[in-house]
Amino acid sequence: MDFRTVFCNELRKEHAATNVVLSGWVSRRRDLGGVIFVDLRDRSGIVQLVFRSDIDQTALQLADRLRSEYVIRVEGQVVIRDTESINPKIATGDIEIEVTQLTILNAAKNPPFQIEEDIDVDEAVRLRYRYLDLRRTPMLNTFKMRHRVYQVIRTYLDRHDFLEVETPMLTKSTPEGARDYLVPSRVHPGEFYALPQSPQLFKQLLMVSGFERYFQIVRCFRDEDLRADRQPEFTQLDIETSFLDAAHLQEMMEEMIVEIFSSVLDVAVPRPFLRLTYHEAMERYGSDKPDLRFGMELLDLSGILADCGFKVFQDVLQKGGQVKALLAPGCGTFSRKELDDLTKFAARYRAKGLAWMIVEEEGIRSPLTKFFTESELQAIRTTTKAQAGDLLLFVADKKKVVADALGALRVHLGKMIGLIDEKVFAFAWVTEFPLLEYDDDAKRYVAVHHPFTMPMVEDIELLASDPGAVRAQAYDVVLNGFEIGGGSMRIYQRELQEHMFTSLGLSDESAREKFGFLLDAFEYGTPPHGGIAFGLDRLLMVMTGQSSLRDVIAFPKTASGSDLLTGAPSPVAQEQLDTLHLLTKDVEE
Amino acid sequence: MDFRTVFCNELRKEHAATNVVLSGWVSRRRDLGGVIFVDLRDRSGIVQLVFRSDIDQTALQLADRLRSEYVIRVEGQVVIRDTESINPKIATGDIEIEVTQLTILNAAKNPPFQIEEDIDVDEAVRLRYRYLDLRRTPMLNTFKMRHRVYQVIRTYLDRHDFLEVETPMLTKSTPEGARDYLVPSRVHPGEFYALPQSPQLFKQLLMVSGFERYFQIVRCFRDEDLRADRQPEFTQLDIETSFLDAAHLQEMMEEMIVEIFSSVLDVAVPRPFLRLTYHEAMERYGSDKPDLRFGMELLDLSGILADCGFKVFQDVLQKGGQVKALLAPGCGTFSRKELDDLTKFAARYRAKGLAWMIVEEEGIRSPLTKFFTESELQAIRTTTKAQAGDLLLFVADKKKVVADALGALRVHLGKMIGLIDEKVFAFAWVTEFPLLEYDDDAKRYVAVHHPFTMPMVEDIELLASDPGAVRAQAYDVVLNGFEIGGGSMRIYQRELQEHMFTSLGLSDESAREKFGFLLDAFEYGTPPHGGIAFGLDRLLMVMTGQSSLRDVIAFPKTASGSDLLTGAPSPVAQEQLDTLHLLTKDVEE
Repeated sequence: MDFRTVFCNELRKEHAATNVVLSGWVSRRRDLGGVIFVDLRDRSGIVQLVFRSDIDQTALQLADRLRSEYVIRVEGQVVIRDTESINPKIATGDIEIEVTQLTILNAAKNPPFQIEEDIDVDEAVRLRYRYLDLRRTPMLNTFKMRHRVYQVIRTYLDRHDFLEVETPMLTKSTPEGARDYLVPSRVHPGEFYALPQSPQLFKQLLMVSGFERYFQIVRCFRDEDLRADRQPEFTQLDIETSFLDAAHLQEMMEEMIVEIFSSVLDVAVPRPFLRLTYHEAMERYGSDKPDLRFGMELLDLSGILADCGFKVFQDVLQKGGQVKALLAPGCGTFSRKELDDLTKFAARYRAKGLAWMIVEEEGIRSPLTKFFTESELQAIRTTTKAQAGDLLLFVADKKKVVADALGALRVHLGKMIGLIDEKVFAFAWVTEFPLLEYDDDAKRYVAVHHPFTMPMVEDIELLASDPGAVRAQAYDVVLNGFEIGGGSMRIYQRELQEHMFTSLGLSDESAREKFGFLLDAFEYGTPPHGGIAFGLDRLLMVMTGQSSLRDVIAFPKTASGSDLLTGAPSPVAQEQLDTLHLLTKDVEE
Repeated sequence: MDFRTVFCNELRKEHAATNVVLSGWVSRRRDLGGVIFVDLRDRSGIVQLVFRSDIDQTALQLADRLRSEYVIRVEGQVVIRDTESINPKIATGDIEIEVTQLTILNAAKNPPFQIEEDIDVDEAVRLRYRYLDLRRTPMLNTFKMRHRVYQVIRTYLDRHDFLEVETPMLTKSTPEGARDYLVPSRVHPGEFYALPQSPQLFKQLLMVSGFERYFQIVRCFRDEDLRADRQPEFTQLDIETSFLDAAHLQEMMEEMIVEIFSSVLDVAVPRPFLRLTYHEAMERYGSDKPDLRFGMELLDLSGILADCGFKVFQDVLQKGGQVKALLAPGCGTFSRKELDDLTKFAARYRAKGLAWMIVEEEGIRSPLTKFFTESELQAIRTTTKAQAGDLLLFVADKKKVVADALGALRVHLGKMIGLIDEKVFAFAWVTEFPLLEYDDDAKRYVAVHHPFTMPMVEDIELLASDPGAVRAQAYDVVLNGFEIGGGSMRIYQRELQEHMFTSLGLSDESAREKFGFLLDAFEYGTPPHGGIAFGLDRLLMVMTGQSSLRDVIAFPKTASGSDLLTGAPSPVAQEQLDTLHLLTKDVEE
């Protein structure tokens, strides 16, 4: 049986008088004085069907039985609508189909929510009936876009000589990094595979193999405590190259991103992307993934207030802290309540206080003016370029707290007072990340990126003396305040790798146990190499303007890792556990 | 640093006198009277470097230190070789590079085996040093081909409006089918995810969602006892469509396959593919995945020997069995030993005996001639079209045993006597598979394909009365004796689905427990749909002419599911198990 000769949304005026076969879902049915109108929906869009009273009576009777979401097949003729019936809201609004034959392919129960563009339904219900939620046009469009992005990525990488190689999903657990999902082995009792947190080791091995340019769109897994913007499984565009320095790799990746945005969204992203060092990003935006769609940079007043009379500021500065301010343009009208709310907001980022000054025509108004000299107040105005009507917000604290609190406050205010142009996609590279950070729990330095990240050549000598100061040849791509990708050049010489393990406090033995096969591989002729990985879920989230990763994943999981549709995870038969040589422990709930 | 201006294999005569930068691996180094020759290898191929004694002495001294698999960067000039030095075996054999500068980027230990096209090395060693094995040209070429196949598939499907959608890897265990790999949940004590055996349920749900045409190149998992041609994880091209009948879907898939073979191998596969019903395939080739590169069909002699005097045959025929023969052309010269070996071969397929007749100019020679009348012998010759010099081999047994034994013997003999043209790719569709088969262990019928397979409309009425006779709307694609794909039209109406579960002896409750969410989904407007899945590992194996799946998977596992490179699976820390609320049972080895 031919179910269709054409998709609904392909039909236009010029098809008038042609006979068509269409199949799809009843989106809406109206009975207007014996004439039945049906909006028929397929993947392409919607077209209006008309069942007139003069057609075959069986078809008319069938049409009377149609309800929303019934699946039907119709034959009919395209006719041009009367001028007054034209529907400019749909692409096929100039025409309709006069139906001559109707087959009900399947009936449908009344869905638990309407299949419409905008719905206000509890997310748990949407997830439970995901197959109905996915019928909604915005959802379908998201997955059409996701499909398109994938094809553009692969076409670009194929054109640039990248080879797509699949790496194993059942691999070895490496306790470094996040928590692994484990898979018990039936054949090897007491042993486990781990699902990959990323194909890091395998892509480096492929470089040892001389594959030179590798990519893969690959599922990765992290058994983390889930926040709103995490999923236990996520999709990564994984890339690794040999004989290419960071600048060349970044250039290629920029070009790829520009191609994605122009092909898929018809948006021209300017190149080259802005480049910020980690240090610069933290100082100017209080974040290593700054939202660059607006300015409102953090303003450092530590210098001009070094000798000020305000004890709180002075104490902080004497202990090596910072005093920084944000200029909120036109916010001088904020009420006491609004200022209190901002203080509470800053407190969530551990700021012990949030000082404020309002600039007025006649001078600065603030509970703090009394602590400052007139020339200090003038210096504040000059440095911040504050105008009458503006609000200044100050945090004085350790560098990290200042950055976190003001960085978050900057984004909060930017949204609140409408500084963000939602149509803009602001990209940047953030570079020169710290190589190591001190882990207070483990009482040792740990790798910020991963233990194969190449230090900056000029910092290598600091590895032994001042590990925390060593910068890495690591880079992130940020977009509108999200990190959408990150990578690094890798250590490819064994001596440097061993030096690195020493800095991480890893014994020879434990490094060998964890990464032995990679260390072995490195001895057989490893090229200079480096790579990057993009979080495709997050990229799609930003591209579609959604606020949750769940809206760009076909079958996502909740914050507790449950799939409300299938009911996974679930208990399994004792027999299955026996086969795997496992017992589950009774847990007191 | 620029590591290269060009790839090795791009250089030709016309590049003479240009300066180039190259990077790669030392494939070979020879010292001929003070002049050092190095074969430099990168991903593209090989070019010859020359270090003459009149160049910079530092470079010459460095060149002297070069060993196989060192990673180097060179600068130099392309020069045309003397006529007598031209190497026609490599594409760059007309030229060589006179090196002016050399940097050793990395040294290399002596590899455990030579990086050459053909090596005779224990597979365990190759797997342990997989990163070196992958350096060999045939391996690299396999993965270049695999890459190319993937791009062609996606381009084709994209052009035909298929949407690529990712389905979950952490999903629900369904005890129907093969054994699941389980993943314990940390957040939900005592509960487990399962890795997908295929995205079957999800792709059907996407059809309920109205995605209409779905595809995914996706990893699947089966915890089976591994044979040489199985891997615990394997890659599948997964496809599902709505509003398309089997004939249209098959046509599209044929077109895709033809495009793969023409684009990647430059082989023109004729269309339409041969179509065989399951019944026909079994009767004519003794296999549901016949190797159609040669004839030698099974010849049914049951009719003409119905009343023969040979008791063994007669008994079989009276019990409803079959007597079938193979004609092995020109094999009349087989020795007694060779015939005995064939008998042993057939016995592995449970044939209780293998009768033989050799056709000679003067008549038939066989230990059995005495049991047959002259007219029966004549009938055998006529029916089998046997000529002088040919060998006839007979199996008399139950239908299944005859098919298995003669089917296997056919392929065995076809290879042995060189009937198979290795350059041919012989495709066919095998259709009308049985829907159900009786499981002697479970004492009930089980689905041959899966429980959502649509029966043939004309057989539905047999579901209750004679379940074993019901044919399915199921189809396989076979290639050179391998099943490379298989699929079916699906049941989309709830009543029929419930009828099917009844035939499978599944109670309402247990069907609901296993597939409840799919049954629910089916109530909300499910379109007619069906799909197919291709085993890409196997397809690549046939395309590259390899005999093991391990040769087309970058990081494969052994028959016991071990990864000899990483050591997976492996014991994990007790702490990890505690987090997962698990205990491992002591197993007596």
